[in-house]
Amino acid sequence: MTQPVSSSAPAAGNGFLSTPATPSAVLVVGSVALDSVETPFGKADEVLGGSGNYFSSSASHFAPVQLVGVVGDDYPMDKLEALRARGVDLAGVEKTEGSSFRWRGRYRHDLNSAETLETHLGVFSHFRPKIPAQFRQAPFVFLANIDPRLQLQVLEQVEKPRLVACDTMNFWIESRRPELVELLKHVDLVTLNDAEARQLTEQSNLVKAARWIMDKGPRHVLIKKGEHGAFMFSPDSIFFAPAYPLESVFDPTGAGDSFAGGFIGYLARTGDLGERNMRRAVVVGSAMGSFAVEKFSNTRLLEITAADIERRVQEFRQLVSFDTELGS
Amino acid sequence: MTQPVSSSAPAAGNGFLSTPATPSAVLVVGSVALDSVETPFGKADEVLGGSGNYFSSSASHFAPVQLVGVVGDDYPMDKLEALRARGVDLAGVEKTEGSSFRWRGRYRHDLNSAETLETHLGVFSHFRPKIPAQFRQAPFVFLANIDPRLQLQVLEQVEKPRLVACDTMNFWIESRRPELVELLKHVDLVTLNDAEARQLTEQSNLVKAARWIMDKGPRHVLIKKGEHGAFMFSPDSIFFAPAYPLESVFDPTGAGDSFAGGFIGYLARTGDLGERNMRRAVVVGSAMGSFAVEKFSNTRLLEITAADIERRVQEFRQLVSFDTELGS
Repeated sequence: MTQPVSSSAPAAGNGFLSTPATPSAVLVVGSVALDSVETPFGKADEVLGGSGNYFSSSASHFAPVQLVGVVGDDYPMDKLEALRARGVDLAGVEKTEGSSFRWRGRYRHDLNSAETLETHLGVFSHFRPKIPAQFRQAPFVFLANIDPRLQLQVLEQVEKPRLVACDTMNFWIESRRPELVELLKHVDLVTLNDAEARQLTEQSNLVKAARWIMDKGPRHVLIKKGEHGAFMFSPDSIFFAPAYPLESVFDPTGAGDSFAGGFIGYLARTGDLGERNMRRAVVVGSAMGSFAVEKFSNTRLLEITAADIERRVQEFRQLVSFDTELGS
Repeated sequence: MTQPVSSSAPAAGNGFLSTPATPSAVLVVGSVALDSVETPFGKADEVLGGSGNYFSSSASHFAPVQLVGVVGDDYPMDKLEALRARGVDLAGVEKTEGSSFRWRGRYRHDLNSAETLETHLGVFSHFRPKIPAQFRQAPFVFLANIDPRLQLQVLEQVEKPRLVACDTMNFWIESRRPELVELLKHVDLVTLNDAEARQLTEQSNLVKAARWIMDKGPRHVLIKKGEHGAFMFSPDSIFFAPAYPLESVFDPTGAGDSFAGGFIGYLARTGDLGERNMRRAVVVGSAMGSFAVEKFSNTRLLEITAADIERRVQEFRQLVSFDTELGS
């Protein structure tokens, strides 16, 4: 699983996604939950949710995914079959006695922030990630939003990944700051939203916030601004990709993890960590985030094709492209 | 003053701003005020402010500007000399008995929204724009944020401009909706911020909001999102430009009008209303907005050079550029 990636057999099509590739595996450790969501456009009850689900559904379009998480004995395992069919290895999804992680939330008209109505951690509150032996050499690792102490435990179990990325949230920034700062020393890339970046660094300016984080260890910081796009800060450059201006956003749940899945998945597919390719990965991530919000749960992520992704990436290009040569 | 300004002799440098150009005149009707502003970084008292001031300071880098506004007999006219020196024709700035328009505001730590502490309309409350005869054929017209009834009166006084753009605000959307909707029939382009677009159209989705506005008349809608960038909606395309990620934003006052000044000024300079050139104009506008916030009042706008503008436009290019060919 550690051998370098993009090989040489030509694939069908001429889009950049169909370019010859031998993708590396992506290990993701995160939540596998049941979400009940209410938006101005409808309701969904006990549908597949959690960072692990969204990330895997998205990343599986680009690379083989190894999912580690925990579910209760009430979890509808048959619903995970769609992930398995897409090449997601579920050997790390532990089923234990108790009830599954459930989240119930509501979005108001502006869709910008979820209102949490109920959270039942269930078996997730005792989650101790155990990385199966066959997952420990995954070259790409995504530590989704879980307790930083657990994220550190995962890193003790993996062997020299090429890229480790982590996500976090306000709750951990408040309750586990020392552990989170310790974690930063061991990751190559952090994804977090703008409010979290400001909270973690106590810097209201995002450029300064990113620099603060990079000073702690990570080479790259990806700041997600939801409907306002995302910044990737690197040692020598800043890249920005807008969110795709969708006419109907149906359910914003999981957009950030779908973004991360597209981003890391694309890097694992291409095996290229150069600046140009990382910019492409941000755009692919943005495209995947934009698909995620078009339907409840991971529904849309599971039905789109490579051609759909190609098309949206080209639409992103159209959206931001300009030149500085005169002429119309 | 109506003859073209910076002439056709090729200028030094090979940037797109130094390309030979015969700029058209830009007429702007707006406020000429005195601002007192407090930000986390300092205070400024009774400095040049108002939409007319910011727009002119910005647009004057690209084209000759004709400013129409009103000031009281207490206005420090000498402070306007810096504008005149930059080619802004002040023949339309009427001085009348009474006190000048004064605004006092404060920005908190996040700098996202101004808190108005005091507004004295003074002579501005009786403003009836009179367009000097020599201004009536300006090919480019910007109706800054004033009463839509006055904006309509301006249009009765001008002769077949190539492009008319208008700005507006929540106050007019609430109090002068019918007049504002009437105005939309007569303008080619509207600039407004995202909250105003949603309020005017009662559509929370910006794509739908833009379409609503375009259905009323304008060919283009420019939705400004402050630190989150700007969208230009056109009949067949959407263009997005981010705000430049500045490390220190000093005073956000006037960013929107400086954006509009750069945008319209660049169009007047190039005379090209094709999609490609309008995209460039949005980026130039974004660059000018990013300069405006670096210092109080129009200070920074008046000190920057063409080379500074070129450089920032290229930085914008760096910020958003990506390709879809493999390679790093």
